[in-house]
Amino acid sequence: MKITFPDKNVREYPDGTSSLDIAKSISEGLARNVLAAKVNGAVQDATRPVHGDATLELLTWDSSDGKSTMWHSSAHLMAEALESFYPGIKFWVGPPVENGFYYDVDLGDHKISSEDFPKIEKKMIELARQNNHFVRSEMSKQDAINYFHDKGDQYKLDLLERLEDGSITLYQQGKFTDLCRGPHIPHTGYIKAVKLMNLAGAYWKGDEKNKQLTRIYGITFPKQKELDEYLAMLEEARKRDHRKIGKEMEIFMFDDEVGPGLPLWLPNGGAIIEELERLAKKTENEAGYLRVRTPHIAKESMYLTTGHLPYYADSMFPPMEMDGEKYYLKPMNCPHHHKIFGEMNPSYRDLPIRLAEYGTCYRYEQSGELFGLMRVRCLQMNDAHIYCTKEQFADEFRGVNEMYLKYFKIFGIDKYVMRFSTHAPEKLGKKYLDNPKLWKETEDMVRNVLIDSKIPYVEVADEAAFYGPKIDVQVWSAIGREFTLATNQVDFGVPARFGITYRTRENTQETPICIHRAPLGTHERFIGFLIEHFAGNFPLWLNPRQVAILPISDKYQNYAQEVLRVLKNYDIRALVDDRNEKIGKKIRDNEMKKIPFMLIVGEKEMEEKQVSVRKHGGQDEGKMSIEDFCRQIQNEIKMQLS
Amino acid sequence: MKITFPDKNVREYPDGTSSLDIAKSISEGLARNVLAAKVNGAVQDATRPVHGDATLELLTWDSSDGKSTMWHSSAHLMAEALESFYPGIKFWVGPPVENGFYYDVDLGDHKISSEDFPKIEKKMIELARQNNHFVRSEMSKQDAINYFHDKGDQYKLDLLERLEDGSITLYQQGKFTDLCRGPHIPHTGYIKAVKLMNLAGAYWKGDEKNKQLTRIYGITFPKQKELDEYLAMLEEARKRDHRKIGKEMEIFMFDDEVGPGLPLWLPNGGAIIEELERLAKKTENEAGYLRVRTPHIAKESMYLTTGHLPYYADSMFPPMEMDGEKYYLKPMNCPHHHKIFGEMNPSYRDLPIRLAEYGTCYRYEQSGELFGLMRVRCLQMNDAHIYCTKEQFADEFRGVNEMYLKYFKIFGIDKYVMRFSTHAPEKLGKKYLDNPKLWKETEDMVRNVLIDSKIPYVEVADEAAFYGPKIDVQVWSAIGREFTLATNQVDFGVPARFGITYRTRENTQETPICIHRAPLGTHERFIGFLIEHFAGNFPLWLNPRQVAILPISDKYQNYAQEVLRVLKNYDIRALVDDRNEKIGKKIRDNEMKKIPFMLIVGEKEMEEKQVSVRKHGGQDEGKMSIEDFCRQIQNEIKMQLS
Repeated sequence: MKITFPDKNVREYPDGTSSLDIAKSISEGLARNVLAAKVNGAVQDATRPVHGDATLELLTWDSSDGKSTMWHSSAHLMAEALESFYPGIKFWVGPPVENGFYYDVDLGDHKISSEDFPKIEKKMIELARQNNHFVRSEMSKQDAINYFHDKGDQYKLDLLERLEDGSITLYQQGKFTDLCRGPHIPHTGYIKAVKLMNLAGAYWKGDEKNKQLTRIYGITFPKQKELDEYLAMLEEARKRDHRKIGKEMEIFMFDDEVGPGLPLWLPNGGAIIEELERLAKKTENEAGYLRVRTPHIAKESMYLTTGHLPYYADSMFPPMEMDGEKYYLKPMNCPHHHKIFGEMNPSYRDLPIRLAEYGTCYRYEQSGELFGLMRVRCLQMNDAHIYCTKEQFADEFRGVNEMYLKYFKIFGIDKYVMRFSTHAPEKLGKKYLDNPKLWKETEDMVRNVLIDSKIPYVEVADEAAFYGPKIDVQVWSAIGREFTLATNQVDFGVPARFGITYRTRENTQETPICIHRAPLGTHERFIGFLIEHFAGNFPLWLNPRQVAILPISDKYQNYAQEVLRVLKNYDIRALVDDRNEKIGKKIRDNEMKKIPFMLIVGEKEMEEKQVSVRKHGGQDEGKMSIEDFCRQIQNEIKMQLS
Repeated sequence: MKITFPDKNVREYPDGTSSLDIAKSISEGLARNVLAAKVNGAVQDATRPVHGDATLELLTWDSSDGKSTMWHSSAHLMAEALESFYPGIKFWVGPPVENGFYYDVDLGDHKISSEDFPKIEKKMIELARQNNHFVRSEMSKQDAINYFHDKGDQYKLDLLERLEDGSITLYQQGKFTDLCRGPHIPHTGYIKAVKLMNLAGAYWKGDEKNKQLTRIYGITFPKQKELDEYLAMLEEARKRDHRKIGKEMEIFMFDDEVGPGLPLWLPNGGAIIEELERLAKKTENEAGYLRVRTPHIAKESMYLTTGHLPYYADSMFPPMEMDGEKYYLKPMNCPHHHKIFGEMNPSYRDLPIRLAEYGTCYRYEQSGELFGLMRVRCLQMNDAHIYCTKEQFADEFRGVNEMYLKYFKIFGIDKYVMRFSTHAPEKLGKKYLDNPKLWKETEDMVRNVLIDSKIPYVEVADEAAFYGPKIDVQVWSAIGREFTLATNQVDFGVPARFGITYRTRENTQETPICIHRAPLGTHERFIGFLIEHFAGNFPLWLNPRQVAILPISDKYQNYAQEVLRVLKNYDIRALVDDRNEKIGKKIRDNEMKKIPFMLIVGEKEMEEKQVSVRKHGGQDEGKMSIEDFCRQIQNEIKMQLS
């Protein structure tokens, strides 16, 4: 059989060779890291034989599917350990989640608390070291029912009810057998580090009328070092929690009378927003974008044209009924921009047209889903739509990517990846707009630009939008947490629904391609990310409070105010700490506030019209004239933004 | 009897002296201009005797009440003229309006068209020159009914039905008698210039089931010159119509699917908005304002706290029902800002706190009331709220006024007046918050600041807001049309309803005074005003298209693009006219577009790396280097903004 690898290499193997053996044929080192395999697009056990020609991706810890498989197997491992401590324990479901896994269990008369975690973890490691294989067996529905009936396991019997005969598999490792679709890692030995995270109550089937089960969360790693790093990262993330720092630094607030998920930005947040918008506007202006401004509402008919209604109605705010019409808060800016493009009635000479707006959109999220600035109902979006010809597309898309890279540099984002979602040819006309030629062209162009510009990316089939390929931009904060920052989308469908066109050289009308892009995402999510990323120590240019002026005593208040006025003329955001406190306390307090510079002014400074400069963190920069200090600040900001 | 004049002067007159005679006692010249009199706050005929001590304001053409009285009398004069041409004509109502007057008439079998206007105008002037007195007579209801019954005038009989006996007056001038409350001018001779404007159909009592009457609009002036100026202004206003220029210059648009009253701003409008906001932010930053950002919605409970609901509900958008709560689009930014002030938990040392936001509010207007950018449903407001102590109030209020004056200078607004609305002591606790001491204090402070800063103002009693005195800022465009630009309001009520306070020096909690201010009003109304004011010839700094680069032929396209790049580096908004047209046509077209500068580039310019500069209007500025031109532009902009 011919096996095609992701790099398009093809090798031949005897029919029935397992993915793991194929890995071994490449390198023993690789094989030791293979957790599962994606065969013809479907994830399965690496130990299962492959039949017939196939595409093969060997999944290791680096892939999300690899991680999921290991965490799924870890749930089984935890179950085995739990069974050894709590005889008669019953198991409901135990899936992998974003960070680790859980299992919902019915402990019967047993009690469990987080104090029991160490012994369970120890047991799991002990069992893992036995290198027990995950053994898959198929079973008829009746046999499975008999098996779990004998075991007295009403939960698995309930699951079985909904399964069809012929599709039922069990997995066994060590002494534990579970009804399970799989896939699983080859054996437990891959699991080297274990941490149970917490306990929660969870109603059976999520229904509060049912019995409450115990949900036990855990996470595992293939190396102890990775677990240590993960726990350190969690601890650091806890310290950097944007909700905590956001409150301490008076950046944003929520209010019951305004409503959940609707942040109000205090002056410090306002200053950050103004700086971000200034950067975005300057960058977009240089890149030839035009700024527009549109209302926050539109009539129902517009969202029927886009197709958001009725399908997307659950994610929109409910309508306002007025003059016999329904008005909706806009969930995105695109249709308003399409209207403007249409009014501009452009010719091919005017293209590309890049319409930018920091538009505020409103989307409904369940109140239980809301989380600080990360999941909100109000989104101030760094939005723009680029309308171009097919010939211009690659250049425009490259320009968008360059803008991302520029921003990553400015914000010190070192780790990022573009998740490039493509269509699935077999779903054309169903999940995807039926224009195979345009799909191929645009996907090829996007891929080529990504390769050319050496941007790290992963390609994921069958996750595109209905109207074209999309790119999710994933970045990692300074402490290694992953965030989805923004989405770029290629759209060759909606412009046609809006009937917007440009005049070609031949005086015909043609529908433009549209690129949706928002490199800085939304203020809400991006500032939430930045708070964690910088732990509140915003770089000078972005810091809402750049300089604190500290008079040594009340005698120097007037001089401090004079210094403040000069700084203001240089557009530096400064404040005077005019409290009647000892200078030592003032320094400590302003250090706590993460203000980048303190200017200490006393007798000598006043006489010589100077300031004594102290950097955040304690570094003494000596005395200098006010103007020299201002110029130094301006230069530093210029450097940070270039 | 003691007569008190507006300047608080008191004079004594025999009881029963008429206002006109009082005027004569001061000066014959004054008396010739007196159209009516305000006695104890009520407007009445200047010829009526005054009884007992009274306050007296003599109303001339300069006062809006004086104008209204003359226009009301002019309606009667027109009626007299009409009756002479159309025997049997019946009159319904004939009130003064904002600019002139109208009369709704039933012409019977007669026909009228605008071609008949000259003869009617001529007749009116003829009758006016007879100096016929407006003679007031009181009549019992029965006598009045008999009179109009004999005349066969069912319209006046209908009016009479709703009037109470004892309150019925008739006015007669020349051969025309009308049922009328008055007041009127002393005699027709005051009317020197007449213009009938247009005709419209108007259903009797506004009900389309009733007969359609003919509404005839007219306007009169005390001098022919004033009429000529008015008609010239109207003609100029027609040319400068912001809807017409706004479309030609691609500044804004409306769209049926977005909704009426909801402008979308095209790139040229976006550029104007960005410049206005940049100016506002710079000005506010220098004046110590802090920028905040708040959502566009809030829960019902917030507007119950402010008192907007239920009283103001008709002016708000209808609610969205979500999670069992009602959410409203915000009709103003104040409550959101109050929430932020509350969260800041300030001490007296932090005051004044000035919170600024270009916040977009939504207000419901009847669709029939909507008018271009002047009456809209979406308002991007140059908003800020200043929270201060009583001691700081005068300084803060002065600062706000200075900001207005700065803006007036930048925008070339030479004529303006502040309409200062105060309370009425007898309505304390009803129409006005019952705190006489604070009313007196704040009104005195406002008045003193207005006087000190020599700002022209008029004081109007009994027009304040519930919570404090207010100032409407009225400006005149370059062609002499009046606009209400913005409102400042002193608020010593709502902050208390929100329970927001600051810590005093004595560690008690005190409610701050709040000043609402919005010197640039809303983008919508202000840009509408500016379009008319500048007739679309926006000053360089504000012009969406500052420079057009005109290559003489296609050969110089590359050089034109090079020039464009340099200009962009200097933040100059420029475009290349790359059409394949003769240079003469390009110049004419760009002249039409009101672009301040054209740069013509050909062989010589390309060789010498120069540009030939031509100013809008045709002035040739000669050749210069690109950089010299850019510096010249930057200097000019700096001058315009200082």
